[in-house]
Amino acid sequence: MKPDSTRVIADLKEFKALTSDERGAQRVAWGPVWRTAREWFQKKLQAELGLTTTRDPAGNLWATLPGKSKKSIVIGSHLDSVPGGGWLDGCLGVIAGLEVLRRAKAAGTPPLTLHLVDWADEEGARFGRSLQGSAASAGSLDAQKELAHLVDRDGAKLPDALAENGITLDGMKGAKPYFDALEAVAYLELHIEQGPVLESMKKPAGVVLGSMGVERHNLRFVGQAAHSGAAPIHLRKDAFLAAAQFALACREISVKYSGSTPRTRVVATCGVVKVEPNFVTAVPGSTEISIDLRALDGKVLSKMLAEAKKASARAAKKFKVEVSWSPLIHITPRLFDPTLMKFVRESVKEVTGSAVELPSGPLHDASEMAGVLPTAMLFAQSSPGISHTKLEDTPIPALDKSIRAFLLTVDRAMSSLSPTGERVGVRG
Amino acid sequence: MKPDSTRVIADLKEFKALTSDERGAQRVAWGPVWRTAREWFQKKLQAELGLTTTRDPAGNLWATLPGKSKKSIVIGSHLDSVPGGGWLDGCLGVIAGLEVLRRAKAAGTPPLTLHLVDWADEEGARFGRSLQGSAASAGSLDAQKELAHLVDRDGAKLPDALAENGITLDGMKGAKPYFDALEAVAYLELHIEQGPVLESMKKPAGVVLGSMGVERHNLRFVGQAAHSGAAPIHLRKDAFLAAAQFALACREISVKYSGSTPRTRVVATCGVVKVEPNFVTAVPGSTEISIDLRALDGKVLSKMLAEAKKASARAAKKFKVEVSWSPLIHITPRLFDPTLMKFVRESVKEVTGSAVELPSGPLHDASEMAGVLPTAMLFAQSSPGISHTKLEDTPIPALDKSIRAFLLTVDRAMSSLSPTGERVGVRG
Repeated sequence: MKPDSTRVIADLKEFKALTSDERGAQRVAWGPVWRTAREWFQKKLQAELGLTTTRDPAGNLWATLPGKSKKSIVIGSHLDSVPGGGWLDGCLGVIAGLEVLRRAKAAGTPPLTLHLVDWADEEGARFGRSLQGSAASAGSLDAQKELAHLVDRDGAKLPDALAENGITLDGMKGAKPYFDALEAVAYLELHIEQGPVLESMKKPAGVVLGSMGVERHNLRFVGQAAHSGAAPIHLRKDAFLAAAQFALACREISVKYSGSTPRTRVVATCGVVKVEPNFVTAVPGSTEISIDLRALDGKVLSKMLAEAKKASARAAKKFKVEVSWSPLIHITPRLFDPTLMKFVRESVKEVTGSAVELPSGPLHDASEMAGVLPTAMLFAQSSPGISHTKLEDTPIPALDKSIRAFLLTVDRAMSSLSPTGERVGVRG
Repeated sequence: MKPDSTRVIADLKEFKALTSDERGAQRVAWGPVWRTAREWFQKKLQAELGLTTTRDPAGNLWATLPGKSKKSIVIGSHLDSVPGGGWLDGCLGVIAGLEVLRRAKAAGTPPLTLHLVDWADEEGARFGRSLQGSAASAGSLDAQKELAHLVDRDGAKLPDALAENGITLDGMKGAKPYFDALEAVAYLELHIEQGPVLESMKKPAGVVLGSMGVERHNLRFVGQAAHSGAAPIHLRKDAFLAAAQFALACREISVKYSGSTPRTRVVATCGVVKVEPNFVTAVPGSTEISIDLRALDGKVLSKMLAEAKKASARAAKKFKVEVSWSPLIHITPRLFDPTLMKFVRESVKEVTGSAVELPSGPLHDASEMAGVLPTAMLFAQSSPGISHTKLEDTPIPALDKSIRAFLLTVDRAMSSLSPTGERVGVRG
């Protein structure tokens, strides 16, 4: 059976109409629109495949198409979105997974079992902890330590939001044994790129090398607030100027450590800047600034962090202020599995004529899976190359090719990983 | 009569106890503590000098000690404060003015009439328009245009706050003819420096050259928000980095145009910085930043502004963003009167042994007065050199010397400006 994106794209449009409003997608995890999204998914599985779903103790939603072997391939992504998000971020991979199951079932019993998972709270949009469900399954989440204290902007507690969905923090420990019992041998995910790399290279799809490591810190520069007219420049301790110099230095660090290919590019971002007292007539007495450094190579990432620390000390000294660092998050680079990446590469090349490789800057559920089993990802071009906005899009021709390449990737994985060498479907 | 600061300092302490709490001074214009402050002032005038006060149509409070001539010297400053302000900012000049009247009265009828004024809403702390009362008297305030739309943080309207104090916007026009009828020939003000210049020079008091001109603008850099991991550096349009480069360039501009003396120093300040979307994982798509340029020389100020505009264009180009400017305020430099400054200089030298000269970066009611009559100011050292905080202070020895020098300045002005050459008081 030739891979076909028709039903996937139709489903995506139907899903968008159901779960978006004029501001964009509204499938924020643990809320009513997200539950509506999951009900739609469950009805599709029931109506088209006769499959029921199981929810694991972390709230991940699983559908299983039994194969000849209990050994399994997991296909996954997430139905949740940020508020006002795009129509494809996350749901593309889950809804393409529906097509994987349809194709596999139409061809008979597959050699390996197929699990399709909708990970819970990938975005962390409401409470700030992303990859929550996949981290629970991978055993890398300490729910009591990481989640018990989280509150949303309105002061609602994450444990209460979980309880509304029948989940307890202690119960979440059960997600790991649930996952282990699946005997998964591979994890595959299709996701939009969320960035402009494929668009800038005019490629509809790409092979993901892994997800970059992240060093995310909060810096606080503290000087002395003063009146903008009364304080001579040479007597000032301007905390904002120190932060400004630091931000520009971090950009230079990212340029210095970036290679010329997508694989070797690194990034540095100052995203949060808060100045106090923030008056037009006040020399800033303190400035909080965040730094988010990313690289696929862990050694490079360490060097970037060391240089950023030196840059902050230089800036503090120049402007006679103090600087302190608070770590926010440290994530090691997660490199994807060479064998599975080969299947992605061959499939992307078969559909699009070439196969560029790029790292993922954003984290994905695949980053968690890569810590516990062979994993690979396929990116669909984003155009415009942005996400977490209703403007996010993938042109239909690129969407079509990406979906077809992903279906072929699963075929190749199933064929290769099957003890019998049996292929699922007939490839045209 | 030897000038003496004893009663002034005692009054200041009494006034602080009445109008401050643990967070600092709370005499915000138009509110209850400010009214309490004015009642204290009125009772002092009545009890010690037998003087009643008059409120002009802008809410400025006037006390008059008639002289042999109706020609008058005006002594003034402001009793209002920012919330959580210091104990001396503004009230020092009004309460020292009480002593001026006491001294003059004790010596008999002065040759010229003395007016003491407590200007209304110098700080603009609640509604944002500073120098409100003195601007009304100088005829430089268009109340309907500048005040009618102002609201405080709680949404209360300035016209309503004025109405609570018996003032109407249209009525405020009467402040100018009221002032003109006073036949003032000089305006003198004692104020704390609010900055670190005198402290850094170890001088208890200083002669103010004038108030700097101000160019205050708001800039908006607009690029494209993007994911911190997904957007390669070379494809970004980072609005914050452009703002950061602009801020550092403005500092360089201020260094370039600053001379080596207090008179020739200029300043540049970026006090407000607002980044959007302000997430740790978001490349800033837009950044608002304010610039406040000050110089005593208007030509220098114009050059600084022109260079700042060029710097903003360079920063925008480098980071592939757009920049737009919105003017906030333009104030021309106000140079003080050479003859009156000579009296200040001689008096400061007499009390402290030397007389340094410095411009005022902050605006004062004297800046408004300088537009309509000969004006001079005397600064008391601030130590620490900060203001608009309860930490604001002037050490008692410096306070004593500043007050005495101010009393002598009034003596000199009275003597010189009197048609008869008669001196007020006997100087020791």
